[in-house]
Amino acid sequence: MPNAKYDVLGIGNAIVDVLASTEDSFLTERGLAKGGMQLLDAEAAEQLYREMGPGIEASGGSAANTIAGLASLGGRASFVGKVKRDQLGEIFQHDVRALGVHFETPMAEGGPSTARCLILVTPDAQRTMNTYLGACVTLGPEDVVTTDVQNSEVTYLEGYLWDPPAAKEAFRKAMKIAHGAGRKVALTLSDAFCVGRYRDEFMELVEKGTDIVFANEAEICSLYQVENFDDAVTRLRGKATLAALTRSEKGSVVVAGDEVHVIAPEKVDRPLDTTGAGDQYAAGFLYGYTRGFDLPRCGALGGMAAAEIISHYGARPETSLLELAKTKGLA
Amino acid sequence: MPNAKYDVLGIGNAIVDVLASTEDSFLTERGLAKGGMQLLDAEAAEQLYREMGPGIEASGGSAANTIAGLASLGGRASFVGKVKRDQLGEIFQHDVRALGVHFETPMAEGGPSTARCLILVTPDAQRTMNTYLGACVTLGPEDVVTTDVQNSEVTYLEGYLWDPPAAKEAFRKAMKIAHGAGRKVALTLSDAFCVGRYRDEFMELVEKGTDIVFANEAEICSLYQVENFDDAVTRLRGKATLAALTRSEKGSVVVAGDEVHVIAPEKVDRPLDTTGAGDQYAAGFLYGYTRGFDLPRCGALGGMAAAEIISHYGARPETSLLELAKTKGLA
Repeated sequence: MPNAKYDVLGIGNAIVDVLASTEDSFLTERGLAKGGMQLLDAEAAEQLYREMGPGIEASGGSAANTIAGLASLGGRASFVGKVKRDQLGEIFQHDVRALGVHFETPMAEGGPSTARCLILVTPDAQRTMNTYLGACVTLGPEDVVTTDVQNSEVTYLEGYLWDPPAAKEAFRKAMKIAHGAGRKVALTLSDAFCVGRYRDEFMELVEKGTDIVFANEAEICSLYQVENFDDAVTRLRGKATLAALTRSEKGSVVVAGDEVHVIAPEKVDRPLDTTGAGDQYAAGFLYGYTRGFDLPRCGALGGMAAAEIISHYGARPETSLLELAKTKGLA
Repeated sequence: MPNAKYDVLGIGNAIVDVLASTEDSFLTERGLAKGGMQLLDAEAAEQLYREMGPGIEASGGSAANTIAGLASLGGRASFVGKVKRDQLGEIFQHDVRALGVHFETPMAEGGPSTARCLILVTPDAQRTMNTYLGACVTLGPEDVVTTDVQNSEVTYLEGYLWDPPAAKEAFRKAMKIAHGAGRKVALTLSDAFCVGRYRDEFMELVEKGTDIVFANEAEICSLYQVENFDDAVTRLRGKATLAALTRSEKGSVVVAGDEVHVIAPEKVDRPLDTTGAGDQYAAGFLYGYTRGFDLPRCGALGGMAAAEIISHYGARPETSLLELAKTKGLA
C-alpha cells in the first residue's frame, strides 16, 4: 500500500454556524432540546433566526471542524461537502481552503442556499443546534473522488450524513473505496438524537463497517440502548472496531479490543461554548492515530484540542493546535 | 422641544466584518498600514480574501457598532445604513434589529453586494481594516427620515460616510434636520487616514457644524496637523464643540469649553482585538450624555464599554453593557 497523500479525508455537511448567546428560557419556551441538534426547514429556520439575538457567523459542520482541527495540528487533510455558490458558500470554501485543506467539491449552482446551523449557547456553555441543511441535500456519490479516498489514510464520516438522503450513498461509496484500498474508515455518531433516528444502520456500521468510531456518552448509550456508560463499554470490548468515547469533564475512554484506556480530562478554566468539542477531540485523536502514536497519547491530543475549542465561541481552533501540542509534549 | 423618542440615531456604513488573525509579516508584505482603514474595490477585496486565513463574520460598521453598544446599555437607538438584499445584508439587518434598534432603511435590491471589511488582527491585538464599500455607495439623502432625526436627542455620524459620495449628502441633510429641531449632532472622525482625505471639511464640521466630536489621538493630531496630543487639546479648548478624545491605554480626555477632564483608563487583562474600541467608547459616552450624567462619568462609561470589546474578537459587545455598568456603579 503506497504512502497516503492525506492523513484524513473528511466527508460531512458543509455548514455555516450562526452563534448567539441565549437564556435557558428561550429554549424551554420553544421546546428545544438542550445539547441536541434538530433539523429545520427553510421557513422554520427563518422564524427562529428572526426570534434569536444577534450572532456571529463561522464556518462549521462536524467533519469540516475536525478537518480544520487536523490542519491546525499540521495534518494533511482533504474535505468533501456541498455548499451553494452564494455568500455563505464562498465563506465556507474560503475557510477550509485557507487552512491548506484540499477541498474541490463543486458548488451547487442552483437549488437551496448554503446550509446554516443556528446555535444557541446558554450560560452553562452548552450549545443547542438548529440546522437548515440547504445545499447539503445535494451531496451525492458523484462528489466522492475515488483517488482522493484511496490516497487518504483515514476516511472520516459524520453520522449527520444520514439526514440528507443522497449523502448516505456518498458515505457508502467512500467506505467501499477506502476499504478496497486497504485504508481505514472512521465514523462519528454525531448526536444522540441522530443515533435514535438511524440506530439499526449505525449499529451495523459500528459493529462491522468501520474501523474507528467516535461517540460521546449519550450517543454510545443511545446506540446500545443502555442507561450506563460502563454497559456500553462492555458491549464494545473485544470488538474489532476501535472506539474513542468522550465524557465531557470526565475525559475520555478508548476501547481497543480487550484494552480499555481511561484518558484524564484536560482542565478548562472558563468554558464558554462547547460547540465543536467532539469534533476537535476527533481531530486530535486522528492526528495522533495517523502518526502511529499510542492510544493514550491519541486520546490526550483529543482532549487537548477539545479544551481549546471550549474556551471560546465557535467550533474551530483560534490558536495553532500544533504549537499547543508542542508545549504539552504531545507533538 | 418634545422628549426624544430615541437617545441616538446613528448613520453609517452598514458593513459585515470578516476577522482573521494574522502575523505582522502578512501586513508588511502587502504594504498594509497597521491600525488603519483602507478602501478596496471588489477585485482587490476578493484577492485579499483569497490570501488571508480563515475568518469569523460579525456585523460591524462604525456607527452601527456604537448603536449596538448603546442598545446593550439599554439606550433607545435608531440606525440608518444601506445593505443589499443578500445573505450578508440579511445578517446585518438581523443583528441590528435583534438588539431592539429601529432600522428601516430599505435594502438595495440590485447593485453591489453588502459591504465587507476584511479585518486583520495581529498578535498585538491591533486591527488593520480593508473595506469593500459595496452597497454603502447607494446610501443617499432619501434614506434619512426627517421625523426619525427630529425624534432623536443626538444624531451620530461617522467620518467614514465621506467615502461613499452620496452618503455625504445624507449626512448634511441629517445635520440640518437635527439642528432645525434643536437636537445635537455628534461626529466621529473615524480614522487618521480618513481625516487626511477630508481634512478641510472635517475641520469645518468640528469647529462649527457639530456639537460633539469623538476622535482618537492620531485622528485629532491629523486634523490639526500637530505632532503632539496636548497641542490638539489646546486647539480645542474654548470651542463650543464638546470633544471626547480617546488615548488607548492612557484613557481619554474630554474637552468642554475651558474644562479639560482626564479620564483614567479601564484595565484590560488580556487585550485580544481592538476592533470597535472607539465605537464602543462613543456608545458609553453617549449613553451617559443623553442621560445628563456629568462628563467624567460619560467618559468612564466610554472606557468601560471599550474595555469589554477589546477583551474578545469582534466589534460588538458579548455581554450586557448595562449589567457591567451597574456592577461598576456607573448606571
